[in-house]
Amino acid sequence: MWMQKEISLKPRSRGFHLITEEIERAIGEPGQIRTGLLSVFIKHTSASLTINENADPTVRADFESFFNRAVPEDEPYYQHVFEGSDDLPAHLKSSILGPSVQIPITDGRLNMGTWQGVYLCEHRNHGGSRNIVVTVHGE
Amino acid sequence: MWMQKEISLKPRSRGFHLITEEIERAIGEPGQIRTGLLSVFIKHTSASLTINENADPTVRADFESFFNRAVPEDEPYYQHVFEGSDDLPAHLKSSILGPSVQIPITDGRLNMGTWQGVYLCEHRNHGGSRNIVVTVHGE
Amino acid sequence: MWMQKEISLKPRSRGFHLITEEIERAIGEPGQIRTGLLSVFIKHTSASLTINENADPTVRADFESFFNRAVPEDEPYYQHVFEGSDDLPAHLKSSILGPSVQIPITDGRLNMGTWQGVYLCEHRNHGGSRNIVVTVHGE
Repeated sequence: MWMQKEISLKPRSRGFHLITEEIERAIGEPGQIRTGLLSVFIKHTSASLTINENADPTVRADFESFFNRAVPEDEPYYQHVFEGSDDLPAHLKSSILGPSVQIPITDGRLNMGTWQGVYLCEHRNHGGSRNIVVTVHGE
Repeated sequence: MWMQKEISLKPRSRGFHLITEEIERAIGEPGQIRTGLLSVFIKHTSASLTINENADPTVRADFESFFNRAVPEDEPYYQHVFEGSDDLPAHLKSSILGPSVQIPITDGRLNMGTWQGVYLCEHRNHGGSRNIVVTVHGE
Repeated sequence: MWMQKEISLKPRSRGFHLITEEIERAIGEPGQIRTGLLSVFIKHTSASLTINENADPTVRADFESFFNRAVPEDEPYYQHVFEGSDDLPAHLKSSILGPSVQIPITDGRLNMGTWQGVYLCEHRNHGGSRNIVVTVHGE
């Protein structure tokens, strides 16, 4: 059985944001597929998806601080600069973190750990709405 | 056809560890599914999974050395510090490396390259036992 | 429905290269599977796959420049040095970027964003031909 839905996430500020609930709403009643996999794919090259701690918001703030230092803006050797200082670093961060997550479905529910949540990683200053494709398949 | 199993890995020291055989044992006889995909998902935010060289153990030692330098402990700008110096870096490393791997199944076997193996990346000093969900689907 | 094909990519120079068209040729007529997922897996530990901007080639040039700085060669603490200066950094880069990509299939086509393409990330100076496994499943 396959279910697939493309949704637009509301615009977020630059940084890391929990979107687990929006994904769960997109797929609706979880019980139809008992055993399977959920795949979420972001259709952009300057934002990304990852899974990390869903509780303390300082983790998400520290992610933004760390990645801004690890992938600095305005390096003199960057050639792709015409879309703004935040653009090329956004491309780099999006490939380091990746455009998709895969999560097992067990007994009709997302089988993540207690402290896991899905992050939208918004790497642009004004990224606007982001589109994701949620695919569920299983039996 | 779907097969799914959740297993607990024995506690490992901080560092990078080959777990290919444990995954193969979890899924049992490989021949039932001829063509498909294996997905392995770790249910934690301070450990991760990756695929890399399965032979020379100095590669895994160098991974630990490199990531400790790339994601240092005790940076003055970290806010999430109350769980210990190794905690926030562990969250960052786990998102850089990622919580899951996907491997094709061909002719009833994991179709990895000769030198590829699955690593458990243990980023905490005392991470304890880690739970992974192994999902196989195919025909 | 499952389709799986292993193909050899022609040798590329060290750097980042668009291979979307080679993947599309490998899977042939896209219309057979209307809704599903495409998975691409690289069978090597010193090359990797990612998804990023498919237009301006300076993005790919900047990726090479950035990752060479982020993962330098000849660090004095590296132990795995006998395969050349480019080898251990290649292993590290390949785990940071990852060995696989997953892309949704919608209405019989790869459902990527307008600006997304699949990159072969060749991290060795002379990596030679690289083998990838393309798996499509859906309905």
